[in-house]
Amino acid sequence: MIVGFGNVGQKMAAMLTEERDKYPGLANLELKPVAIFTGRHGGLVNAQGIDLAQALKQYRGSGGFPATPLTALQALETLDYDVLVEISTLDIANRGGLAMAHVRAALDRGKHVATANKGPAAFAYRELAALAEKKKVRFLFESAVMDGTPIFCLGRALRGVRVTGFSGIFNTTTNFVLSRLEAGESMASAVRTAQELGFAEADPANDLEGWDSSAKTAILANFFLDAGIDPLRVDRCGITGVTPDAIARARAAGRKIKLICRAWREDGQVRAEVQPREIAGDHYFAMINGRAAALRLEFDMLGPLWILEENPDLLDTAAGVLQDLLAIAGEG
Amino acid sequence: MIVGFGNVGQKMAAMLTEERDKYPGLANLELKPVAIFTGRHGGLVNAQGIDLAQALKQYRGSGGFPATPLTALQALETLDYDVLVEISTLDIANRGGLAMAHVRAALDRGKHVATANKGPAAFAYRELAALAEKKKVRFLFESAVMDGTPIFCLGRALRGVRVTGFSGIFNTTTNFVLSRLEAGESMASAVRTAQELGFAEADPANDLEGWDSSAKTAILANFFLDAGIDPLRVDRCGITGVTPDAIARARAAGRKIKLICRAWREDGQVRAEVQPREIAGDHYFAMINGRAAALRLEFDMLGPLWILEENPDLLDTAAGVLQDLLAIAGEG
Repeated sequence: MIVGFGNVGQKMAAMLTEERDKYPGLANLELKPVAIFTGRHGGLVNAQGIDLAQALKQYRGSGGFPATPLTALQALETLDYDVLVEISTLDIANRGGLAMAHVRAALDRGKHVATANKGPAAFAYRELAALAEKKKVRFLFESAVMDGTPIFCLGRALRGVRVTGFSGIFNTTTNFVLSRLEAGESMASAVRTAQELGFAEADPANDLEGWDSSAKTAILANFFLDAGIDPLRVDRCGITGVTPDAIARARAAGRKIKLICRAWREDGQVRAEVQPREIAGDHYFAMINGRAAALRLEFDMLGPLWILEENPDLLDTAAGVLQDLLAIAGEG
Repeated sequence: MIVGFGNVGQKMAAMLTEERDKYPGLANLELKPVAIFTGRHGGLVNAQGIDLAQALKQYRGSGGFPATPLTALQALETLDYDVLVEISTLDIANRGGLAMAHVRAALDRGKHVATANKGPAAFAYRELAALAEKKKVRFLFESAVMDGTPIFCLGRALRGVRVTGFSGIFNTTTNFVLSRLEAGESMASAVRTAQELGFAEADPANDLEGWDSSAKTAILANFFLDAGIDPLRVDRCGITGVTPDAIARARAAGRKIKLICRAWREDGQVRAEVQPREIAGDHYFAMINGRAAALRLEFDMLGPLWILEENPDLLDTAAGVLQDLLAIAGEG
């Protein structure tokens, strides 16, 4: 069952149908959802399995699906399905909102979950991971941080090596806006440009105030450091208070201001923060410009490892969900 | 059985004994080798299993082990053991040399192999991987490229995503020497400094002429692109021909010269090269200085992913071999 059919869902459907020949790694992945739900554009239900190519055509043609008698949650609780693909968007104000209920309902019924939504792993990782383990199903969220970059895939494959902390730049909008501020643009104008380029939300507060970064930091801290925290427990400061003066001072010293996410162990606890920081010009973080993102993992028996993505787009996010689905399919 | 007990072997032994408490991930790894062989400093054989702490003490105390009646190869062909840990050094002139014979002998007898030696995977990946598959054992070599950075671990864990090519900076000595040339030092003096700091070999030709880089490029091309090549088929140019003039010209243009390794598909074939290249100052490669290393992986359904290591040392290399051993132990 698919919940959410925005840009990521449509891209995923396209990759599995009209673009399929380009991706030999998808050859054995069959996806026949019994339902597709959207937030405000109706849905489809078909116990025999929905033809994705047709659904995509229908959605593109009419800008939505018909209204359904069932809500997504009701469908998740009653229909027969194998996997929940939850790709609605983050609802931070409601602590994960409906997505949380969807994921919980699916796992509780012993169904696998692949989600690009940051809410579930940010707000309830411990509970949901434990539920998945109890029900012997997978709870996967590769696209929740750094799009389809296989961070969690790597984390699950590591042997012997323990992560002791991390830092990173995870939010495209703030990183882009900071670059424009450096170039002398105003905050309002930089945000408008990001919106015009299509990667800032209509309401950019979640990004600018550091909520998106905090959600991602919480997920990584929960996954790698068993932190058991949520975004509200991340020491958070966004970039709305970063002044042209501060940018100019940093620049004069050959430095840059970046919104840096961090987590580390201290006195037996995990601490996490999202804060604008001055970065030396020759530091890798100073090179993370535009849409790029970076994660620096620290280990006990290995020096720090950096994972960077250059210029991710929709394809990367969709590819992350497909990686999760292939991992689930590999479980047999 | 352990073949090779130089710096990496001793560090590994130390991590499993006197430093063990620092690494909780090693808690369940028991290593009781029936033999330890060195190239020129004798060996130990004990069918009951050698106490690693004692062996380490003995080696440190007397600078070696007693002479053994068996060669390592004879031991691999006749003794009873589970895993070959092959950590001798690369013998490029003899196409992998003894290490190749060791690995082949172990796999042929259905024994797992964990090796930091670049020879086997560089010169005979296809043959050895096929042999390991036939015998249902593992042939692992995490430390052969970028020390213990879990590159092959990630490659094996990826689902659906196909690597289409890569580029990187893999050799510490050449990267360090190029940085010193930029600072105005002569080639001879820069090489001497690298030797004094302990990371260039007494005979630095393998590094400076690009052989080490070619071996690593061949391994990555074999593993990620099924290239079936060896280092002699990498289009190779080292840095011995890089003149102070060329460095100065690049520098004046805000650029750097780096020894770049690459592999890509072209006309149904895999091509690979190691060549000094001018790199723009704002390119990630330009930031890879000193002992750092970088790999840029290109994919079919994902944007390019960068993996960087900052400042690896012996610990990282030893940790790579231990990751392999834990992966083997996990096989049950």
